Amino acid sequence: MGKEEFVKEITNIEEDFAQWYTDIVRKAELADYTDTKGCIAIKPYGYAIWENIQKYADAKFKETGVENVYLPVLIPESLLQMEKDHVEGFAPEVAWVTEAGGEKLDERYCIRPTSETMFSVLYSKWLNSWRDLPMVYNQWCSVLRWEKETRPFLRSREFLWQEGHTIHETQKEAEERTIQMLDIYADVIENLLAIPVLKGRKTEKEQFAGAEATYTVESLMHDGRALQAGTSHYFGQNFTKPFEVKFQNREGKEEYAYQTSWGISTRLIGGVIMAHGDNRGLKLPPRVAPIQVVIVPVAMHKDGVKEKATELFESLNKKFRTKVDLRDNYTPGFKFNDWEMRGVPVRVEIGPRDIENGVAMLVRRDTLEKETVELSNLENRISELLEEIQTNMYNECAKRRDEKTTVAYSLEEISKNLEENQGYVKTMWCGDVACENKVKEVTGAHSRCMPFEQEHLADTCAICGKKADKMIVWGRQY
Amino acid sequence: MGKEEFVKEITNIEEDFAQWYTDIVRKAELADYTDTKGCIAIKPYGYAIWENIQKYADAKFKETGVENVYLPVLIPESLLQMEKDHVEGFAPEVAWVTEAGGEKLDERYCIRPTSETMFSVLYSKWLNSWRDLPMVYNQWCSVLRWEKETRPFLRSREFLWQEGHTIHETQKEAEERTIQMLDIYADVIENLLAIPVLKGRKTEKEQFAGAEATYTVESLMHDGRALQAGTSHYFGQNFTKPFEVKFQNREGKEEYAYQTSWGISTRLIGGVIMAHGDNRGLKLPPRVAPIQVVIVPVAMHKDGVKEKATELFESLNKKFRTKVDLRDNYTPGFKFNDWEMRGVPVRVEIGPRDIENGVAMLVRRDTLEKETVELSNLENRISELLEEIQTNMYNECAKRRDEKTTVAYSLEEISKNLEENQGYVKTMWCGDVACENKVKEVTGAHSRCMPFEQEHLADTCAICGKKADKMIVWGRQY
Repeated sequence: MGKEEFVKEITNIEEDFAQWYTDIVRKAELADYTDTKGCIAIKPYGYAIWENIQKYADAKFKETGVENVYLPVLIPESLLQMEKDHVEGFAPEVAWVTEAGGEKLDERYCIRPTSETMFSVLYSKWLNSWRDLPMVYNQWCSVLRWEKETRPFLRSREFLWQEGHTIHETQKEAEERTIQMLDIYADVIENLLAIPVLKGRKTEKEQFAGAEATYTVESLMHDGRALQAGTSHYFGQNFTKPFEVKFQNREGKEEYAYQTSWGISTRLIGGVIMAHGDNRGLKLPPRVAPIQVVIVPVAMHKDGVKEKATELFESLNKKFRTKVDLRDNYTPGFKFNDWEMRGVPVRVEIGPRDIENGVAMLVRRDTLEKETVELSNLENRISELLEEIQTNMYNECAKRRDEKTTVAYSLEEISKNLEENQGYVKTMWCGDVACENKVKEVTGAHSRCMPFEQEHLADTCAICGKKADKMIVWGRQY
Repeated sequence: MGKEEFVKEITNIEEDFAQWYTDIVRKAELADYTDTKGCIAIKPYGYAIWENIQKYADAKFKETGVENVYLPVLIPESLLQMEKDHVEGFAPEVAWVTEAGGEKLDERYCIRPTSETMFSVLYSKWLNSWRDLPMVYNQWCSVLRWEKETRPFLRSREFLWQEGHTIHETQKEAEERTIQMLDIYADVIENLLAIPVLKGRKTEKEQFAGAEATYTVESLMHDGRALQAGTSHYFGQNFTKPFEVKFQNREGKEEYAYQTSWGISTRLIGGVIMAHGDNRGLKLPPRVAPIQVVIVPVAMHKDGVKEKATELFESLNKKFRTKVDLRDNYTPGFKFNDWEMRGVPVRVEIGPRDIENGVAMLVRRDTLEKETVELSNLENRISELLEEIQTNMYNECAKRRDEKTTVAYSLEEISKNLEENQGYVKTMWCGDVACENKVKEVTGAHSRCMPFEQEHLADTCAICGKKADKMIVWGRQY
C-alpha cells in the first residue's frame, strides 16, 4: 500500500475536523465504541497515554501532600440531594441503580457523577479537631454522566479522571490549595502534553454546581476551538454546612471546614489529539508518548538487518520507550506511514547500506525532517531530538494560540473574529450574565474565563457598553 | 494514655478474631464504613498498601507483555446472558441500572461484576488474523457484587481489582498464560506480602462460572482459615464460541480463540492484616508498608531533639518510606503504641542522651526487639533490618502454615483436625462432587484446591473409600 493511498484513509484535517478526529481515534487504536451506548473502550495505546499522565500528575500531587483514597461508586439519592445547586446540576444526567441482588432497592443509588457529596459525608465522620486538618485526598476513578451527545475522550458518558477533595482550617488555605492544584494542571498540560494553557476564573454562569469559585485551564485546539482541560473549585462552606463537616478550632469553638475539589480527565487525551495532530495522523509529545522511538528496518530480508535492528532496540530501549517493527507482512513504506499516523516522535530507519556506513536515518514526526546519524552518536542525538520535539510542539501550539487570539470591542466584532478565526476573543466585560448570554446566543461561544493575567483593553463592556473593569476571553468549545 | 490502656482498645486476637479484624481496619485507619451499604471507603493508609501492590504486580504483568486498557463499567443485560454458566453464576448478585438521564432505559445495564462478556464482545471486533494474537489485556478497576454479608476488604460489595483477559492462537499458549499469571500472583503474595501460598487447581464445584479450569493461590490466616488470594482461569472456547471471537489461522481457516482471565483484588489487604497481625495491631511487611520507618523523638521539648529527628527524617526518607512524628499533643509512649498498632516495621527512637552519644534506638515491629545503633551506621542497619523483618515475617507464616497442615484418612479425621486446628487438611479424593459436598456439609470446609505438588497419601478417597489418585486440600474459608 503506497503512502498516498494510506494517507487518504484519514479525512483531511482542514475539511472535516470532527471526522478527522474520529478517524485518528479509531485508526491509531486509541479507543473504540462499545455495546454500552456513549461509552468507549480505551485500547492499550490510548490507555498508555493516560498512564503517563497519571504517573506525572500523581507524583506532582503527592509532592504537595495529596493522599489517595477510594470511595464507593454508588451514592445514595439522599446524599446527592443535600446540596441544592449540586443536585440541580447533576441529577438530570446521572444513572440510577434501582435493583440489586435480585431485589428492588428501597433507596436508589446513583453512579457517581462526581464525589463531593460522598467525600463530605465521610469528612463529617473523620473530622474532629483543627489538628486533623487539612485532609487532602484524591481518587483516580471513573465517573458517569448521561450525556446526550458523546464523542470519544471529549465527552463520553463514562470517563476516567482524578477528583481531589480537600478540607481546610481557613478560607485562605483552601483558596491557596485551589490555585496550587490549578498550577499543577498547567504544569501537566504545558510540560507533559506540550499545550499552552490560559489560566483564569470561570464566570458565575460557567462555574461548577455548588462552587463559590471555579478556576480553569483552557487550551486551544487545531481548529481554534477551546477545550476546558482542567478545573479547580473553591466551595467555601457550601457543602460543609449541610453535611456538618465541622471541627473544634484553635479557640475551642466549633467551625465548618473550607473545601475544594479539582479534576482532570481522559478528556486530556482528546486534547493531545486535537492540539497536535495533522494530516498524517496523531502527533505525540515525546514525554507522554507510549512509544518514543520506533525502529524500522529496511530490506529486512538482507543479511544482518533484522539482527542490527534488534540490537539497536535492545540498547535504545534501556533509555527510551522503544519499539522495533519486525512485521514481515508489511513494507517499510507502509510502516513509515503507520508509525507516523500513530504519532511516534522519532523513527529510526536502518538498512544494509546504513549498517555498512555505521549510520542510521532519524526522522522526526513533528517536522518530518530527516538526518543521518553515526550509530555511536545515536542515543545522544535521540535524547536531544526528543527534547527539541517537545519544545517545538509546544511552540507550534503557542504560535497558533497567538495567531488565533484577537481583541474585540463590540458584539459584532466578537462574532466576526470567531467566524473568521475561531480562537480566543478578548474583550472587556461588565460582569453581567445578560451580556454573557447574549454572546452565547449570537456567536455560540461561551466565556472561557477571566484570565489571571488581566489587560485593560477599554473602559467599557464590549457587549452592553457599560463600565467594565474585567477582561474576559470568549471562545467556542468542545 | 499508658500502653495497657491503649492495647485494651483492640479486641484480643485469640478471643474474637473477627472483632479484632474490624478493630484493626478502623483503628489503623485502613478503611471505614459508608452510607452505601456493604461498600467501604478505603482511607489513605489502606489505599497506599493497594498502590504498592499495584505497582509491584503491574510491573510484573508488563514484563510478560500485558497491556492495560479500560472497558465500560456498564454491561448491557443481553451481553451478560451470552454465556449460560456465567450468567447463572453472576446474575443473582449484580446491580442493575434501569434509569438514566431522566428516562427509563429500554435495556438494563448491570454494573460489571467481572468483564469476560465485555472483553469477549470487543475481542470479536478486534480479532481478525492469527497475526493479531495474542491479545493480553488487563484493567485495574472496581467491580460490584451484591453480597449479603460483607466484611471490609474481604467481602465488600464493591472492591478494587485487576482483571486480565487474554486470547490466544492455541490451547497450549492459553493454558501456559493461565499458569504464568498464577505464578506472578504467587510472587506478589510471597515476596511482597510475605505470605506463603498453596498453588493448585480448583475442583469443578469451586471453579469460576464459565471456566474450563480455575487455578488458585491459597493462603492461611492467623486463625487457620484459608483465604483464596488470587485466581487464574482457562476458558477454552467457552466464551469465544458464543461471542464469535474467531480468527483466520495459519492455514487460512476460521478458528475460535482460546481465552483466559485472572484477578487479584483489595482482598489481599485483608489477607495482610489477617496473616500477620497480632495483639498490638497491624504488622506490615516492609516491602508493602506505606511507612517503613517512623522516627519518634523522645523529650521533644529538649534543645535540639526536634531538629535532630527532622534531620534524620530528611536523610532516611531518601532511602526508605519514612515518617517523623512531631505531634506535640501525644507522649512518646502513646506514639510507640500508635505506630506499632499501625504496623510500621521499624521505629527509630531518639532523645537527648542518644544525641549526646551519637546513637539511636531501633525497635522492630515483628519481634519488638530493640537495639542501639550508631547514627553513622543507621541507614545500613535499617536496610538490613527491613530485609530481616520481611524474611522473618514470611518464615513465621510458613511455620504456622506447617503447624496447621494435617493429613486425614477419613471424614471424621477431617472434621476432628479442623475442629482442633483449623488449617489445611490434606486427603486423597476420588474426584466425586458428592464427597466434596459431604465434607462441606459435615465440616463447613470447602476444598481449597488440588495442589500442583501432589503426594500419594493413600490409595483410597478419605470420604467414600473408593479408589483415589488425587490429593486435595480442605479448609474453612474467608
